[in-house]
Amino acid sequence: MFAEFEKYIRAQAKITDEDVKLMRDTAIVKTLRRKEFLLREGEVCRYKTFVSKGFMRTFRISNDGTEHILQFSPENSWTTDPESLEHQTPSSNNIIASEPSELVMWTKNDFNYLFEKIPNLKDYSQKLITRNLYLTRQRMFTAISATAEEKYDEFIQMYPGIISRVPLHMVASFLGVSRETLSRIRHVQVKQ
Amino acid sequence: MFAEFEKYIRAQAKITDEDVKLMRDTAIVKTLRRKEFLLREGEVCRYKTFVSKGFMRTFRISNDGTEHILQFSPENSWTTDPESLEHQTPSSNNIIASEPSELVMWTKNDFNYLFEKIPNLKDYSQKLITRNLYLTRQRMFTAISATAEEKYDEFIQMYPGIISRVPLHMVASFLGVSRETLSRIRHVQVKQ
Repeated sequence: MFAEFEKYIRAQAKITDEDVKLMRDTAIVKTLRRKEFLLREGEVCRYKTFVSKGFMRTFRISNDGTEHILQFSPENSWTTDPESLEHQTPSSNNIIASEPSELVMWTKNDFNYLFEKIPNLKDYSQKLITRNLYLTRQRMFTAISATAEEKYDEFIQMYPGIISRVPLHMVASFLGVSRETLSRIRHVQVKQ
Repeated sequence: MFAEFEKYIRAQAKITDEDVKLMRDTAIVKTLRRKEFLLREGEVCRYKTFVSKGFMRTFRISNDGTEHILQFSPENSWTTDPESLEHQTPSSNNIIASEPSELVMWTKNDFNYLFEKIPNLKDYSQKLITRNLYLTRQRMFTAISATAEEKYDEFIQMYPGIISRVPLHMVASFLGVSRETLSRIRHVQVKQ
C-alpha cells in the first residue's frame, strides 16, 4: 500500500529517499471492507489519511435524516476532517468505504513531525489545502448559482471517472438535487 | 490603518515588536470609496489584503448575468483570491467595497518573506486557511441540504452584525435563495 503513496508523493513534491523512509516509518496502513467506517459523526478524527486503493466518501446527516455527500475520495487522494484533526474536536462527518479500500495514515503528531523534517512536504500540503479551498468555493458557487443541468455537467467534467463508480442517488446527494431531477437530466442527455 | 491591523495580529498570534516592524515596513495601505473595486474578474490577484475598516464583498457573475456573493469581509478580516494569488492566474471573482474601506495589503513576495522571518505568522495563516476551508464546507453543506429558512437562520447566527449592513437582495444572493423567498421568511419571523 505504501508503494502507491510513494509513487504519488514523489510525483507531487521534491523529496529525498530519506524523506520517504521517514514517511514509511511513521505510516499506519489499514484495509477497509465496503461499508466499513473510517470516521463516524461524534468521533475525533485522529489521522491524516491517503487513499492508496479503493474509494471513500464523506457524508453528513442533516436534521431531517437525509445523507448529504460532501466529498468523494478515490485512490490517490486524501480524506480527513481537517477541523476535527486540527482541534481534536468531535467531527460532524462520516467517512466510509464505498469500495474495498487501502489507506495510508499518519497521526497528527507524526505528521507534524514530518512537516518539521520535510519542508517540501509542508509546502506541498499548503498548496493542497489552497487547492481544496478553491474547489470547495467553486462547488459552493455552483450550489448557489447553477441550474441542476449545469451542476450535473460540471460534475461530469470535474470528476470524469466517478460517475461510473457510484450509484445515481449518491451523485444526486453530492449535487444537492433530487434523484428524480437527476434521472430526468440524464434521460434528456442520453436522447440528445 | 496599520494600527488596527497591529491590534488584530497581536491578539491572534504571538509576535514580537520586531515582527510588527517588519510587517509595517512591507505593508501597503489603501483607501477605497464605496463601489470601488479591489479586484475585477480577469485580473490577477496581487495582494494579501486585510480589511482594517469598512466592508468588502466578493462576488462572481454566473452565465445568466446574475451576481452571486461568495464572501462578506467586514473590518478585522481578510479578503483575497487565494488561488489567483498563489498561481498568479486571472481571477473569476470581483472584490468591491460595500462601504468606504481601509485596507492593509502585502504583495505575494513580501508576504512570503514575512512567512520566512516570522514562523508564528505562518502557523497562524495555516490555521486561518483551515478555518476558512471548514466554514466554506459548512456553507456548501448548508447550500445543498438546508431549507431557505434554515439557511437564513444559520446566516443570522454566523454573521450577526452583517444583516444590518447589507441590503436584503445581497443576503439573498449570499444564501442562494430568491429575494421573494427571503422576504417571505423575514415577514413570517417578524410576525412570530
